[in-house]
Amino acid sequence: MSLAEQTRWLDATAQAELVATGEVSPRELAEAAVERIEADDPSLNSVNLRWFDQSLDDANGVPDGPFRGVPFLLKDLECHVEGQPMSNGNVALAKLLPRSTFDTELVTRYRRAGLVFLGRTTSPEFGSLPVTESAAWGATRNPWDLDRTPGGSSGGSAAAVAKGMVPIAHGSDGGGSIRIPASCCGLFGFKPSQGRISMAPNRAETIVAVDHVLTRTVRDSALALDFSHGAGVGDVIRATPPTRPYIGEVGADPGRMRIGLMDHNPLGKPLPRELLEAVHKAAALLESLGHQVEPAFPAALDDTSTRVHYGIIRSPIMSLTIDKIAEQIGRPLEPGEVETFNMAQAEAGRTISAVDLTAAMAATDRYRRDVQQWWADGWDLLLTPTLSELPLPIGTCDPDPDPDDHWAALFRAGDFVPFTPPFNTTGQPAVNLPTHWTSDDLPVGVQLVAAYGREDHLLRVSSQVEAAQPWAHRTPNP
Amino acid sequence: MSLAEQTRWLDATAQAELVATGEVSPRELAEAAVERIEADDPSLNSVNLRWFDQSLDDANGVPDGPFRGVPFLLKDLECHVEGQPMSNGNVALAKLLPRSTFDTELVTRYRRAGLVFLGRTTSPEFGSLPVTESAAWGATRNPWDLDRTPGGSSGGSAAAVAKGMVPIAHGSDGGGSIRIPASCCGLFGFKPSQGRISMAPNRAETIVAVDHVLTRTVRDSALALDFSHGAGVGDVIRATPPTRPYIGEVGADPGRMRIGLMDHNPLGKPLPRELLEAVHKAAALLESLGHQVEPAFPAALDDTSTRVHYGIIRSPIMSLTIDKIAEQIGRPLEPGEVETFNMAQAEAGRTISAVDLTAAMAATDRYRRDVQQWWADGWDLLLTPTLSELPLPIGTCDPDPDPDDHWAALFRAGDFVPFTPPFNTTGQPAVNLPTHWTSDDLPVGVQLVAAYGREDHLLRVSSQVEAAQPWAHRTPNP
Repeated sequence: MSLAEQTRWLDATAQAELVATGEVSPRELAEAAVERIEADDPSLNSVNLRWFDQSLDDANGVPDGPFRGVPFLLKDLECHVEGQPMSNGNVALAKLLPRSTFDTELVTRYRRAGLVFLGRTTSPEFGSLPVTESAAWGATRNPWDLDRTPGGSSGGSAAAVAKGMVPIAHGSDGGGSIRIPASCCGLFGFKPSQGRISMAPNRAETIVAVDHVLTRTVRDSALALDFSHGAGVGDVIRATPPTRPYIGEVGADPGRMRIGLMDHNPLGKPLPRELLEAVHKAAALLESLGHQVEPAFPAALDDTSTRVHYGIIRSPIMSLTIDKIAEQIGRPLEPGEVETFNMAQAEAGRTISAVDLTAAMAATDRYRRDVQQWWADGWDLLLTPTLSELPLPIGTCDPDPDPDDHWAALFRAGDFVPFTPPFNTTGQPAVNLPTHWTSDDLPVGVQLVAAYGREDHLLRVSSQVEAAQPWAHRTPNP
Repeated sequence: MSLAEQTRWLDATAQAELVATGEVSPRELAEAAVERIEADDPSLNSVNLRWFDQSLDDANGVPDGPFRGVPFLLKDLECHVEGQPMSNGNVALAKLLPRSTFDTELVTRYRRAGLVFLGRTTSPEFGSLPVTESAAWGATRNPWDLDRTPGGSSGGSAAAVAKGMVPIAHGSDGGGSIRIPASCCGLFGFKPSQGRISMAPNRAETIVAVDHVLTRTVRDSALALDFSHGAGVGDVIRATPPTRPYIGEVGADPGRMRIGLMDHNPLGKPLPRELLEAVHKAAALLESLGHQVEPAFPAALDDTSTRVHYGIIRSPIMSLTIDKIAEQIGRPLEPGEVETFNMAQAEAGRTISAVDLTAAMAATDRYRRDVQQWWADGWDLLLTPTLSELPLPIGTCDPDPDPDDHWAALFRAGDFVPFTPPFNTTGQPAVNLPTHWTSDDLPVGVQLVAAYGREDHLLRVSSQVEAAQPWAHRTPNP
């Protein structure tokens, strides 16, 4: 068996161990990942920017960090790597492919950990959708079912990890964009607390997005958090540092946690049988592990006006995003150079007043406090489905189903994700646990949400579930 | 000598000790403070809302906290005390005097510390000015010179502490509103890091204000920070907790600090001789204490466009503030019910777009990172004048000097405070040290600014300066 196949299903920790013990070199591991990407990606379309030659040349020189030599992919969204291109999923930028002039603080930390950056994974334009389809790069497909989405917006990373091309890949989550593709692809997807991962040196903090990784194992995500968490210079929102390394939470006894179960769709539509089955099975599993699970959830989660406020906050950011690209290319964007739903949002952003935006931010503050109060009142975790539907068929969020309705893709997308965006708004850490597969072998995950700053709770319980009902042996058919 | 005079110049720590040792009761201490307020306040007009009877009745029942029995005053701004009135310095609310239905998280902590709340101190309307003059409550005067302002917006608290009515009083600082009156009144004024003091359960976090206290001694402010810091439920911005109690920093060796000296006015106008003398004397003192002091400062501080962004962010908040009062009184506010400059700002807020506000917030993010980078580059503290002028004569920021220019008061006010607002924008902790008095016996303070989250540095150096050049014996003429 080739090294590419021998290492395909090893997690990052195991691959790093091969390097640390001298069994393989970083370059050999990187070559194995390149071999897999070249063989597997044509059917998935998940790795859209590749800098293999330079990475292979540099691989043996990477720093001696905890993940020295582990092949890694970065999402094609807002994550600058000095000298390398980035498109944010946009047509105009995909043509221009501007090369970044700096590393973000997070990328600096990934470098120090010894990760070998092989390239970038697909993202829908500006990360706006929970599927990974764009005019710029086409559709990324789910390794478990090529006719379905791997989810989004970190769908390229999820597909690449689920297929075993790399053991770990970067993602970001501003409305569920790590948890959603983790659910669709049967992975552990961990959105840390807002402010756990630095936004330095250039990102605005109004966007409630948090970066982290998609992995198959809990330990990989925990260790990656250890080497990447912590504030950078000038970060406004800073989660309180943990009292001990996150990797120490993996396998640690969580005690008896008080867990609320929310098994209805706050948008009112009924949940499909398979999803209810998944969340009820997870509840039973958690009970069998000694936890107290009861039907209970923060009442504010049924207040969907927060979605309107989220839109009001996000729209003017989209307006400025479009303006900045126009500045980069030296002319206004033409039709076809921006997805219609993003342009619609950008135009809507220009009609909103500062007073309405300030009121939306204030309402968001109140919502955050209301939701977090439930945890303050004595609950440890909330269990919900991660999604309201099975992974959508490719094309479901077609940007132009109706030339008169430019918002159609966004609204259809919104129906798919009632459970994840609230915890971006509230800043709380949340994971997708891959605890269920349908009879058709489609992954269906569940979401666990902890109190703000309590990643330790999530890692303890996630690793407990992983030990009780392992999922890593499940791999998509070749 | 009466107990009122015996205890007038004792700091909060000393007064609490009298209670702890049983020498006086909380009620006796409170009665002494009431006696001083009734005797001294007529000339100063600093204590505008009084709930003496109830406080005296309840005094002996206050919790056994570190400041048990210490008489205390709360600023009349945004600091709800259940069952007690608050006006925010506004005419309409001063007439209505609505009683709060809850304690803010901070007030809960003040209660737990054993403080005896005697009433409220004056604030200019909505805390908008660096003087304490309002249509609602008239002008508050400086105990060191009755023709001058005690500064603002926490000018009522500063006047009350400087006169010895109470040893400690609450303030808040969104543009210098603790440091400014501390400078004008010869007090220690400590603005903690943004996110050090909870904004729960109701305050929006976009306003960059931080609450804390005005005191005569460094130890009082340090101990007050120990019992009041830390996040509440749903707080977005949370400063990383200290590794040991702040009181332990008082008297601790700061080592050799690298201190930059900024002794020019970023607004371009020359600084008066007395202020230059104050800051240069402070620099010499710090050098004599073993620190390295050099002319150096973050270049971004000379970029005054941040003031424009601050105005863009603050204006729509003012619009909503006015709307909320109209809702409370059940009709639109009439002329004379809001200060003209605040109404002008509220009206301006209604003309700003969400895109311009979002751009201003993004520019503020960049400014924050640029300024903080100077500390990250190896500097420990920045030394500046606190103000650009001596305490202004009463009436200088007359709200209506020119009926055609509703902004006049705000612009005149802005000239007075070039040094304090930047560190609200950047979130950094900063103090006023009362190190200088003019030949006319007017206090002139200097500002020390630490890196974000490094209150420990400020407390070490402040207490070192306090020990080397004590100021507590300086009291205004009776």
